[in-house]
Amino acid sequence: MPRRIVIIGAHAAGCDAAAAARLTDRTSEIIMLTQERYAGYSRCGLPFVIGGHIKSFEDLIVFPPSYFKMNRIDLRTETTVTGIDTKAKTVSVHYKDGREETIQYDSLIIATGARAAVPPIKGREKHGVYTLRTIEDGQKIIEALKEARSAVVVGAGLIGLEIAVAFMERGVKTTVVELLPQILPAMLDKDIADMIQRELEAKGLRIITGKSVDEIVGEDKVKGVIVAGEQIPADIVVIATGVRGNVELAEKAGITLGETRLIKVNMRMETSVKDVYACGDCVESIHLVTKRPTVSQLGTTAVRQARVAGTNAAGGYAVFPGVLGAAVTKLFDMEIGAVGLTESFAERAGIEAVSMVLSGKTRASYYPGALPITIKLIVDKETEKIIGAQIIGGEGVAPRINALSYAIMKEMTLRELAKAETCYAPPLSETWDPVTLTAQALIRKIKLR
Amino acid sequence: MPRRIVIIGAHAAGCDAAAAARLTDRTSEIIMLTQERYAGYSRCGLPFVIGGHIKSFEDLIVFPPSYFKMNRIDLRTETTVTGIDTKAKTVSVHYKDGREETIQYDSLIIATGARAAVPPIKGREKHGVYTLRTIEDGQKIIEALKEARSAVVVGAGLIGLEIAVAFMERGVKTTVVELLPQILPAMLDKDIADMIQRELEAKGLRIITGKSVDEIVGEDKVKGVIVAGEQIPADIVVIATGVRGNVELAEKAGITLGETRLIKVNMRMETSVKDVYACGDCVESIHLVTKRPTVSQLGTTAVRQARVAGTNAAGGYAVFPGVLGAAVTKLFDMEIGAVGLTESFAERAGIEAVSMVLSGKTRASYYPGALPITIKLIVDKETEKIIGAQIIGGEGVAPRINALSYAIMKEMTLRELAKAETCYAPPLSETWDPVTLTAQALIRKIKLR
Repeated sequence: MPRRIVIIGAHAAGCDAAAAARLTDRTSEIIMLTQERYAGYSRCGLPFVIGGHIKSFEDLIVFPPSYFKMNRIDLRTETTVTGIDTKAKTVSVHYKDGREETIQYDSLIIATGARAAVPPIKGREKHGVYTLRTIEDGQKIIEALKEARSAVVVGAGLIGLEIAVAFMERGVKTTVVELLPQILPAMLDKDIADMIQRELEAKGLRIITGKSVDEIVGEDKVKGVIVAGEQIPADIVVIATGVRGNVELAEKAGITLGETRLIKVNMRMETSVKDVYACGDCVESIHLVTKRPTVSQLGTTAVRQARVAGTNAAGGYAVFPGVLGAAVTKLFDMEIGAVGLTESFAERAGIEAVSMVLSGKTRASYYPGALPITIKLIVDKETEKIIGAQIIGGEGVAPRINALSYAIMKEMTLRELAKAETCYAPPLSETWDPVTLTAQALIRKIKLR
Repeated sequence: MPRRIVIIGAHAAGCDAAAAARLTDRTSEIIMLTQERYAGYSRCGLPFVIGGHIKSFEDLIVFPPSYFKMNRIDLRTETTVTGIDTKAKTVSVHYKDGREETIQYDSLIIATGARAAVPPIKGREKHGVYTLRTIEDGQKIIEALKEARSAVVVGAGLIGLEIAVAFMERGVKTTVVELLPQILPAMLDKDIADMIQRELEAKGLRIITGKSVDEIVGEDKVKGVIVAGEQIPADIVVIATGVRGNVELAEKAGITLGETRLIKVNMRMETSVKDVYACGDCVESIHLVTKRPTVSQLGTTAVRQARVAGTNAAGGYAVFPGVLGAAVTKLFDMEIGAVGLTESFAERAGIEAVSMVLSGKTRASYYPGALPITIKLIVDKETEKIIGAQIIGGEGVAPRINALSYAIMKEMTLRELAKAETCYAPPLSETWDPVTLTAQALIRKIKLR
């Protein structure tokens, strides 16, 4: 009898797990269950549809229905899993037509993802208050934007800022309110975040940091928010204060959660229960620098974990080593990326770090079109290994973040980075890449101490 | 008495050596000698001035006269060094005003660079036949272009193709003739080179490979070249068949040359004679993959070696580990880069390699403006370490080459590369970077063997 693999969730993690399982075992039966109407789309693209860069939400669908058909994946949408029995190796499901069923599995993959975490702000139930997690959310926001002249986004993380910029690009006057003293607090140190904040403010985005939204006001429909006594008008409010892993199903089934309150897995992405795997936003990751549990709710992590979970669930062998938190985005014309530990995360992990921030150009200074780029390098003071980097620039940020991801993964030292060979042609780069120059400057700074 | 450092040559290698020497020893006396009228400019920029991308040759001057003044570097232009006496520790010089002088040195840095190597083609002395190595060469070519309607470039290396494209951009019908069976033979394998050749031909550039120029014809002034019996009209001919290191002065002084007929140096860039250092196009390098002597006449190598030579010549300590040959250029809208060994160089070095070529997109496929990119990865069959890469693409080639340079330097294996974390945002990248996808495809190919 063929192996039956049941996958709960059908986005980045679920779909890539299914793909890996199919590659590993051509004969297995694969059943995918999702509460959503749409499966296999890129959530990361949602803000860019709102901003008008991508034509329609349908363009975000990476795994079309034909994909599931071709790969013999039995996708069941608008289907709720109500329970997992790890002893009987079954999941109980509730279909949209009201039917209930108990499905036997040989391997189970939990890819339940995460949901928007909404803090208990007074008035959050009013019309015109949204979160952005699904295509349906996005459709509602675009509809609401048609009559909106002003907006408030609560939370200045990646998604919050991407939404705020999208609103600005649609001509809606927008304010971002962030409780912490800086924007992008999970991704960047304050020095770099402040540079970005100034750029965004210069584009007309209002940003309030270090203050909370006391209340969302309006009758039935939102009219504004109160921040530190000031009423900021808003026809639309989006709450983007992070996500919370959907771990309740796993927890109820007796599967162990880690110290981050996400599902604990081993390197094969296996949970505390045999034959039950988990991947994506609902699992805890190990940070490759600190070697300790961390929360990495990124699409890139999800797909990598999913391949490992899918391969193992189908009887193959693969391991997932851990995460570095490589992330990037584009806000207006500014590219922003980070990888590894920030200085403040390093400090919290007990690592004394030294750092250097340096600005340069993306091409030879005499070549027209050279754009500014600012690099921050973070190095472990004792080992002098690279442990983190943050980059803002007009171009070339993502591949430099990837290069530094390789460097951190391979435990490259600052001196090695300063000597590493880089290529050069006037239309494409500077003689010394700005990353190299930053490394050289950091070496001088360390020598002077 | 302050240390006196004499540097022969005043371009990338000479200037960076002087800068490093000044940083290392603030009190030293630094004398730089160059035959040229202009010092401290970027040779790599010359074709891009001809193409009209950079306004004037003066823009290429990276080290202006004020730099030498400020750093107390005694620059003597249009000055010929006629001999080195390593026993007496002197150099004999001939100034432009006819004066001769013998200069004592404590440390000597030979940064004599290279000159265009012109094969003995019949008719090469005619008017209208040029090489491109100096600003003066560039000025002559631009002058000649004013009345030129057709051109032939002999040699399809980096410089040859950059010149040919510059000519096309100026509306001059151009043919490139390459003796070897492919373009860019020192940089790329034939499969990748052929892809580029097709793109260049589609833009109207005529390329003839595997044939030599039998004769340059014309009376006093060039009229065309004869290739395999065909006369190709040309009002201007540029010979770009590579460069030859200026090692005669060193050789005459009894300094040892290596097997590549370039100056042999140790890791401190010291020659076979104490207190005599050498760097740049005139020295032999060690390849970081093969650990054997190689020729790396790149600006990026020159400046890196120069810093080490300058530091050591001034009493400091620094080592230069070797080269990977990271190179990049832009031809029309196409970026082309390579690092490490090509498959054919690997074979010649006795390394059995496996490789994979894969094409992808630079951004999410649903995001407008995604450009094509093709990656070739080369891996040592036994160790499965990455030993080389070649990339063509519409954007993002240079920083990917740098990333792979880090990977090769840190002896990253194919499996590590396939798992390495990369960042993702729809406007900036694909979920899986094309480099990652190529690595994954190569793993599958190896498994199937």
